[in-house]
Amino acid sequence: MLTRIDHVGIACRDLTERISFYEATFGLTVVSREVNQEQGVREAMLHVADGPAGSSYIQLLEPLAADTPVGRFIARRGEGMHHVGYGVPDLSRALDALGAAGVPLIDKRPRHGSMGAAVAFLHPSGMGGVLTELVQAPAR
Amino acid sequence: MLTRIDHVGIACRDLTERISFYEATFGLTVVSREVNQEQGVREAMLHVADGPAGSSYIQLLEPLAADTPVGRFIARRGEGMHHVGYGVPDLSRALDALGAAGVPLIDKRPRHGSMGAAVAFLHPSGMGGVLTELVQAPAR
Repeated sequence: MLTRIDHVGIACRDLTERISFYEATFGLTVVSREVNQEQGVREAMLHVADGPAGSSYIQLLEPLAADTPVGRFIARRGEGMHHVGYGVPDLSRALDALGAAGVPLIDKRPRHGSMGAAVAFLHPSGMGGVLTELVQAPAR
Repeated sequence: MLTRIDHVGIACRDLTERISFYEATFGLTVVSREVNQEQGVREAMLHVADGPAGSSYIQLLEPLAADTPVGRFIARRGEGMHHVGYGVPDLSRALDALGAAGVPLIDKRPRHGSMGAAVAFLHPSGMGGVLTELVQAPAR
């Protein structure tokens, strides 16, 4: 079902500063910046690698306000790893299978993610504490 | 410097149970089980994908005792994402460059990691709260 590690999602207080750090330290390049009002974040995707099933990224997430999921995450746990996203070839089919298997879904249907992808989150309560995102990249 | 997301490290209380969950839920396969006394963990690598610069894994980590880094992590924060590991082509060179750039290193020299890899950890205090591992896969 999983075709790759699509991205690691990292919560930060200052997106610009954190981007500069990853650019300067690892020579990574920002390939997308977006504001996702639905998720309450300002975000950037830094390209790490390409693979046969798609690319891998570091996703940096700055909360738009304290009263957002990422804002509350930072208040509770500090900056750091927020979630992991895995590539899937067919997100609707994956969600049907996972729902049928009893995995608690935050999103029963795909919603809009970064860079035109369809995404859905699985609840950490069913994932051993890991907020897990599934990502279906847009058709090229 | 980074060639891929090598793995996501996930701390769990019961390795066997967590492996079974990932196998059953995502159809993943365990490709390595090890005990790393130095790091105080019993661990398993589940294969996610292959890429031009190497493979990607989910690394499940069960502490060997409460008084280990992963044991303390779970006591403090619960089960969940513990660290992220990125592939590098030359770990010693990467550590020299990062050290010179002022990135705080947990390991100034490579040490033994999973599946014969050389690894080193960067301190989360310098990485925006992210415990970051660099991985040089063994020569094939």
